[in-house]
This record gives sequence, C-alpha cells and structure tokens, in this order.
Amino acid sequence: MDPFAHFETLLAETRLDGRYRVFVELERIVGAFPRALWHGPGGVAKEVTVWCSNDYLGMGQDPAVLGAMHEAIASNGAGAGGTRNISGTNRHHVALETELAALHGKDAALLFTSGWISNLASLGTLGKLLPDCAIFSDALNHNSMIEGIRRSDAERFIFRHNDIADLEAKLRSVDPARPKIIAFESVYSMDGDVAPIAQICDLADRYGALTYLDEVHAVGMYGATGAGIAQREGVAHRVTLIEGTLAKAFGVMGGYVAGPALLIDVIRSFADSFIFTTSLCPHLAAGALAAVRRLKEDANLRDRQQANVDRLKHLLRANGFNLGATESHIIPLLIGDAHLCKETSAFLLDRHAIYVQPINYPTVAVGQERLRITPTPAHSEHDMQALLAALIDARTALSSGAAPLRDAA
Amino acid sequence: MDPFAHFETLLAETRLDGRYRVFVELERIVGAFPRALWHGPGGVAKEVTVWCSNDYLGMGQDPAVLGAMHEAIASNGAGAGGTRNISGTNRHHVALETELAALHGKDAALLFTSGWISNLASLGTLGKLLPDCAIFSDALNHNSMIEGIRRSDAERFIFRHNDIADLEAKLRSVDPARPKIIAFESVYSMDGDVAPIAQICDLADRYGALTYLDEVHAVGMYGATGAGIAQREGVAHRVTLIEGTLAKAFGVMGGYVAGPALLIDVIRSFADSFIFTTSLCPHLAAGALAAVRRLKEDANLRDRQQANVDRLKHLLRANGFNLGATESHIIPLLIGDAHLCKETSAFLLDRHAIYVQPINYPTVAVGQERLRITPTPAHSEHDMQALLAALIDARTALSSGAAPLRDAA
Repeated sequence: MDPFAHFETLLAETRLDGRYRVFVELERIVGAFPRALWHGPGGVAKEVTVWCSNDYLGMGQDPAVLGAMHEAIASNGAGAGGTRNISGTNRHHVALETELAALHGKDAALLFTSGWISNLASLGTLGKLLPDCAIFSDALNHNSMIEGIRRSDAERFIFRHNDIADLEAKLRSVDPARPKIIAFESVYSMDGDVAPIAQICDLADRYGALTYLDEVHAVGMYGATGAGIAQREGVAHRVTLIEGTLAKAFGVMGGYVAGPALLIDVIRSFADSFIFTTSLCPHLAAGALAAVRRLKEDANLRDRQQANVDRLKHLLRANGFNLGATESHIIPLLIGDAHLCKETSAFLLDRHAIYVQPINYPTVAVGQERLRITPTPAHSEHDMQALLAALIDARTALSSGAAPLRDAA
Repeated sequence: MDPFAHFETLLAETRLDGRYRVFVELERIVGAFPRALWHGPGGVAKEVTVWCSNDYLGMGQDPAVLGAMHEAIASNGAGAGGTRNISGTNRHHVALETELAALHGKDAALLFTSGWISNLASLGTLGKLLPDCAIFSDALNHNSMIEGIRRSDAERFIFRHNDIADLEAKLRSVDPARPKIIAFESVYSMDGDVAPIAQICDLADRYGALTYLDEVHAVGMYGATGAGIAQREGVAHRVTLIEGTLAKAFGVMGGYVAGPALLIDVIRSFADSFIFTTSLCPHLAAGALAAVRRLKEDANLRDRQQANVDRLKHLLRANGFNLGATESHIIPLLIGDAHLCKETSAFLLDRHAIYVQPINYPTVAVGQERLRITPTPAHSEHDMQALLAALIDARTALSSGAAPLRDAA
C-alpha cells in the first residue's frame, strides 16, 4: 500500500467531518492580555480579544513571574543541559518541588515537562509496578490519564462520570486483596463540572484504594491558597496523589505530581518518560515558583475571576445559551455540530475580533461540539458585553432554522 | 497487598544493585560554563567542572539565545496559554518550525515539548495509522522510540545494532505489500557510534520503507549548517523524517520532527500527546530559533568541540582507558560495575570537584556501566588534564585488584 495515499484519505475525512484543525497564529502582548495579535492567513495582523486561553488568571504576563524568569535566565542560562539524573537538576527545580509539596500538604513533589507526561508517568508507573493492580477511571478522564492507565497494563474499570454508586459497584466487584487506584479529576476540562472528592475518598477508605486526583483545571484558582478544589473542600489530606500543571493558572509550562515521599520516589526512579527527558529549563521553574507564591498569598485574582465567571454565565444564560452543567470557571457554550461550531468561531474572529476556538472531536464526543469560554480577571464588563453581542449576532446570522445556538430548554 | 510495603522493597532492591539515583543539585552560572555550583547534601555550595552536560556547545549561555528569550518574554510573556489548537500557537512557534524544516531540507516541521514526546508522538501515530505496518527498530534505539513503536501497536522487528545484513534479512521476511518504517538514530547516545545512514536508505529504497532518523545527539554539531549526520553524509534528502531536539546542542528544551508536509500534518492532526499538551513557551521557541540560526552560520563552536573531543580521546586512550567504539563527541569510559561506577563518580566530585554522572541500568545494560564524558568547546586543556589526573587517581584509589578502570586490551 502507498502510505501517502492512505494518509491523504485520512486527512480528507477530517476535512469532510469539520475536524481538520487550522491553528490560529497569535502574538501575545504583555500588558494587553486578553488582547493579542492574530496573524491571519493573508499576513495581516489584527488585534483580537482571546476568550479561550488557559492562562486563566493572566499569570503569563505577571511582573513577578516574568521578573523571576528574566533573573534566572541572566544567572543560570537557558536549558538545563540534561535529564534530572544527568546534570539536569537545578536549584530552581528543587525549590519549586518543595513549594508544590507544601502547597498541597504533601511530603514531596516531582516536576515534569508537561501535565500530559505527569499523568502518563505517574499512573503508568504505579499501575505497572503494583502486581495485579486495578485502576478505576472516571469515564471523562483526560487523554493523558487514559494513556497512563493503558501504558500501565493494569486492569482498567471505567466508572460512569462522577457516579459514586457505579464506582462503588465496580470497587466491590474486585478482589479486596488486589491493589487499587481511583483516578479522577476535580474540575473536568470540557464541561466544567466538579467531582465529589470527599465521597470518592470515603469509598477509597472503605475499599483500600489509593486516590489520584488531576487538579490541572483547579490549581491556582480554588482553595484558600490556590491549592485546588481538594483544598477548598478540606479533603486534600485524604487524597493520595494530586497532579497539577504549571501551564494554566500558573502561566508557565510543565506539570507535577505531589504525594507521599515513597510514591514520588517510585515515580522518580522508574518512570521512563521522566528518566529519559531533559528537565524543565531552570528559569521556568523559577517563574512557576513566583506564580505559585503569588497566588498563595493573594486571592484577588481568584476573586475577580469568579466574579467575571458569574457575570458572564448570567449574561449568556439570560440570553438563552446552553452552558451545560458547569460549576466552575469553564463555560461550555454547546453547539452540537462540528461545522456550525467552526463557522461560529470563524464568524466571531472575522466579524467581531473575538477568538474562541471551536472544540470538536476527539477533544469532545461527536454531538458535543462547543465553544469553550474562559473568563479571566482581565476581561472587562465591556469585553463581556461585546462577546454576548457577537454570539447573538452569530446565532442570528448562522442559524439555519434549527436554532442550534439556542438553549434546548 | 500493601502498596507501600511493595514499593519499599522495590526501592531497596535498587539500592542494593547500586541503581538508586540521587540527583546532583547544580546551579548553572552564565559565563562560567562548564563550571557550575554544586549544592551538596550538607547545604554547602562548591564550584565544580561539569563533564556530562548535553548542553554540548554551551548554547545555554549564548548571548544571542538568552537575548532572544529575554526579548520574547518581555514582549509575549511566559506561557503559551493553551495547546497548539486552543490559543497556544504563537508566532515564534511558526517561525521556528519554518527554520527547522529549512535546516533539514524538508517541507515542514512540528514542535513538541520534549524529544521523548517527539518520538512517542511521531512513531506512535504513523505506526498506528498505517494498516498492518511493520516497524524495523535498531536494537539500541532510545527508550522514547521504543515507547512510540509499542504505543503504535505496529508489529516490531528489532534488528541488530547498526547491522545492515540483519536489517535486510528482516525486511525481506515481511510481505512487500505491507507499509514499513525503519527507525534508527544517527549518533547513539551511550556509545557514541554512528549509523550507516546511506546503506539503510538503500535498503529502504529497495524494500519500500519510510525512514525515521533520530538525530538528537547530532543536530547543531555535525554537517555544514549543523543539520546533523545525515547532512554531513549528504543523505538528508533520502531520509523521510528527521527527529531532533532543542535541549542539547541548541541549549534550550523541546523536540521536533521534520519531513514531508503530509506526514507532519498527520502527526499534528492525530497524535494525542501533541494535541492534548500545552505548547512550548513562545520565548523558548524564540531562544531555540536564535540557537539554530547561530549554529547554521558559524561552525566555530563545532570545530572547537571536535578538537577537544579528539584531544581528550587521545589523552584517555593513551592512559589505558577503555572508550569503546565511539565515533563522535560522546566519550563513554567503560567501568562495567554499578557500584564502582557510582563510587568513581562520587570520588571525582568529592576529591576533584569534577562532575561526571554514573550511567547505570536501565540507561545502559547491566555490565555496561560507564562514565559518559562530553567535552564542549568551553573545556580548556587545563580542564582536560585535570580530568585525566582525577581519573587516574580514582583508578588507583578504587581499583580492588581487578583494575576495572583499565582497558582490557
């Protein structure tokens, strides 16, 4: 067979399905967030308002973060020069790991180059090394958790999303002597709903399971010191391992896992994806450390974000948009058709200088296509009114009778 | 079973085997490379000479690289704020991908957050999407290539290291109609030997296979413009895909793959590990772009590195050390015992302020333990003499009759 012809066919199918991705080329501007320059296909740059960034609190332009990065680059240079084991451990890594462990009230933490790798390495390693391990995985877990569980070769039990009864039934079905891990998220990235962490910890106690909680969409934004939903709910000490990211509310890049010293040592010692990867640049650790400390001491950005989230949800719902069951800062505006989702996004960008990326399969299931809107503390009332007006305009212009942008309720 | 007791046992075994890793905490100093501060267990900082960095050319402290990073941070901030598809594509990513494609004479390139992910994503995706694909993999391929091939679920044929006859026998054994990929490296990371790229391309032509070449230990350092061994040998145009890193000779972090536009588009469109990961910070792409351009135009650092490599190999061999079959800047000093390897490294650090990390299992096979020495353009004749004297001292002090640091020849 001809590989090239085969691949042409595959890509043609994604185009037909409205799934082919065209990256929007941006130029972020320090001091102007959430404004950015969009470099469109014609080579023309245009200022747009970004409504889909995971730089949830605008820490990517925070002076303390940028200052720490400049300073570390000037002192320690660019790259780490090696894996953590081979000349690539720097002071900034160690300081950040200590800070992250303290943030979550855990013994130890370990850095990775991304949240994706954090999950692959942690779940993949623990599941593989525990003989006959059973991993209980929420049906809406992120791709990186699923890949970690697959890679572990442990037996996987998928429980219905946030469904305690189904989780218990599955736990009960497994030999009590087998080691068990319950893997779940706090804030689910595409729907914005929140896991019943305390109830899951109750089940973990009852059935002798370790718990692994992905808080990437929560760290920095929830809890008294920004440690996440588990902190807000007062249950962080009951969760075995908490996984987080430095690339969203903390504004930089990289991922981490925090937990008991022994488990962190096991992941550090046995995870191939950790062992064989050049470590994060030291200045990224320095910048993330500044972000973690800033958000630990100052709740102002969190409060302003939540105020904007509440305001925008009210505006959108009052105007008949379907936002699903979100309980967080993630606002899904459900559209339910890949082509219409893309068209709406393009319309907002072209006509209203508003950038919200369409979210299509495989990021969400077919039929669940949406715009995923993320208000930050930096969006103004004027920005929100402009977004609302643009969405109403899009609904009028693009609805072909079926009013797919209108709430079904 | 008790997971904690199980893990205690596992770690105890690594300690007994001499495989337990203790990270050496360093503080790199801009302008002083290869000198760095070592923050030892007692909290005391001591200046050491680093002889095991993969910042092969010292670009991690290059003014052009650091300047580009400072400028991009000041203009564009810290993180990208999203995946490449969801607000995370920035001008610097696009510019760097264009430059890397041109460097390798390919249509297109794609950035990843690490070389490990480059291989996982590229081999994993191509192997999975090609029906009934057969992947021919060199026996000494890097862990990340092996993981990519495993993840692809393609049938894997491991050929003997750099053995053209064995590769041909395995190619011949497979149905000519099946799609095939030959995956190999140019410079092998632990032995420093070099693949017969032209001969492998001949076989690829004969048997209709795509070729996938990992040049992470070669880019920046070999070829007229630093494009790697394939460029030096004049065969880059015959290789389908070239994978490289920004974290070694280019001094920053991240990985990439360059090749035909269609294949890059397929990896971009279907690789989970790419799709679901926040993109590299824009300023890292800016720094790497500066490094690529600098090493494209100026061969001075390459020439000085090679002169130091030749000199140090001569000094070590003349003094009876076994360097194996290295043909590159990677100098393995074979020791063959995990405990002695660790002791030698600790002796060099404590007594001579010289840091060379011991390389033990699983990075190399048991019995192949070594010090892996990487001369840079920044090491002086005095540094080399000091290293030689320290190694001779270690051999005298630590040899217990069997003279394990002495060449068997």
